[in-house]
Amino acid sequence: MSDKVTLIEMGPRDGLQNEPRQLPLPLKEELVHRLAGAGLTRIEVGAFVSPRRVPQMADSGALLARLPRSPRLSYGALVPNEQGLAAALAAGVQEIGLFTACSDGFTRANLGVDVEISLARFAPLAAEARRQGVRVRGYLSTVIACPYDGVTRPKRVASLAARLLDMGCHEISLGDTIGVGTPGSVAPMLDAVLSEVPAGQVAVHFHDTYGQALANLLPALERGVRLIDSAVAGLGGCPYAPGASGNVASEEVVYLLHGLGMSTGIDLAALATTGAWVSRALGRQNGSKVGRAMTAHRHQEHAS
Amino acid sequence: MSDKVTLIEMGPRDGLQNEPRQLPLPLKEELVHRLAGAGLTRIEVGAFVSPRRVPQMADSGALLARLPRSPRLSYGALVPNEQGLAAALAAGVQEIGLFTACSDGFTRANLGVDVEISLARFAPLAAEARRQGVRVRGYLSTVIACPYDGVTRPKRVASLAARLLDMGCHEISLGDTIGVGTPGSVAPMLDAVLSEVPAGQVAVHFHDTYGQALANLLPALERGVRLIDSAVAGLGGCPYAPGASGNVASEEVVYLLHGLGMSTGIDLAALATTGAWVSRALGRQNGSKVGRAMTAHRHQEHAS
Repeated sequence: MSDKVTLIEMGPRDGLQNEPRQLPLPLKEELVHRLAGAGLTRIEVGAFVSPRRVPQMADSGALLARLPRSPRLSYGALVPNEQGLAAALAAGVQEIGLFTACSDGFTRANLGVDVEISLARFAPLAAEARRQGVRVRGYLSTVIACPYDGVTRPKRVASLAARLLDMGCHEISLGDTIGVGTPGSVAPMLDAVLSEVPAGQVAVHFHDTYGQALANLLPALERGVRLIDSAVAGLGGCPYAPGASGNVASEEVVYLLHGLGMSTGIDLAALATTGAWVSRALGRQNGSKVGRAMTAHRHQEHAS
Repeated sequence: MSDKVTLIEMGPRDGLQNEPRQLPLPLKEELVHRLAGAGLTRIEVGAFVSPRRVPQMADSGALLARLPRSPRLSYGALVPNEQGLAAALAAGVQEIGLFTACSDGFTRANLGVDVEISLARFAPLAAEARRQGVRVRGYLSTVIACPYDGVTRPKRVASLAARLLDMGCHEISLGDTIGVGTPGSVAPMLDAVLSEVPAGQVAVHFHDTYGQALANLLPALERGVRLIDSAVAGLGGCPYAPGASGNVASEEVVYLLHGLGMSTGIDLAALATTGAWVSRALGRQNGSKVGRAMTAHRHQEHAS
């Protein structure tokens, strides 16, 4: 089994989208630049969604226009509909993210329709993106449980993942959206999915609401999953807001993987510096413990 | 393999000892009372150490005098020397904790002597405690690495753990004092120790400096370890202090274990309430994400 793991950086999108403060465009550009400099190769930089509903993502097109292109870098963006797809293609993304969930309660609250209707809308978007030579990533939310519908059955996740694959997704990102999973629920969910989808096309996307996200990566790694969604500084859940839930911090993931003897191509010190920098820029506590510890050590070294 | 896990609660000792603010005696009493009410059966309540060096623990005797006794409850206290042992025995502890480390650099900094000399002092204290019918817990620090001496060899941990057992310790608590371990280093350390010490006499004591503590419990559980040291609200490392490292939060551990289908005898809601209460009493952010999420949910329920 390969010891090479790829992180898909969610900070500029899933992270910033859920921060109370907006990051100005030049700082977003600097964030992506710093992330790429730290060795991240796949970065989700924005979302072509309603600027009224998600003002934090309104400058996604402008950001993509400013970003340098490189063969080793892939920029992604979320797309909810034809209009968003057209804008994303015009902005020159390498990858679009299409999203749905395992539960009707969640898609109704977020997309206004049931899962089946969201899939019917999904199919032509995926086909059009592929015609234009752009890769399609499928996001499945509520793979463990839904805040409206309760526990999700593993077989439900597996069959939806297989359908997204059939629609032309090159990989499926499995999201524990409300962060309630433990290895006790993540392992059977993954076993079901991996009976339908090759491990090389499965990504895990864990939120740290109950502090379980990093532990949940272990059953995924044991099962051959090598694609991990994470956000620098644990962006997305403000540590000052009670109950807020960010993505698992990229720094913690890299620390874990290197400790397991796996390779990521990421410079952890540069990543930690980036997390400390963006936390300052947002005026929030750094949500990464690795970031806090490494920054503290550096301060001590400077002081001595 | 048994699915029953016992938590040894470190909040009142390892937690409060490392908090910048002191908790007044009546609130310490209430903390222990609340922890016992939530189902904790083993609680380390204090340390009979130098009150000048560790003022937070100066009232350990007074606290023990106020605490109710029950056959299902065991109170423990750290003891560094004969004077401390006499005071602990007079205060009526059920268990004493004797401590040393795997590295001379660490014992020199904390005890002023090398590991071998600390062990020579350890032996008569253990013997005397056992003569008085009090159980002896052995603490081994720096089982993964030492801030002064670097990486610790697994065989070193194993041979020291075996010697503590020979001195009459009923269990050995293995401490990743600076929280640098990952499952990649914890697993071989445990394999070495478990070749010398039965799993039933091994406890793990992880700090969350790099966010790895919960993940590190998985290789311990897989190897049959069923004793876990933790601190309510992740006490011990102030989240506002950069680089501070608390014990793994008891709430996160209980959430994980229940998610794995294991039993703890602990009421998670009562534990989370206790963590929120003590965090307010200390004027600090709740270091448990489970605690923050559960408290937020309760607020939402009240609001709706």
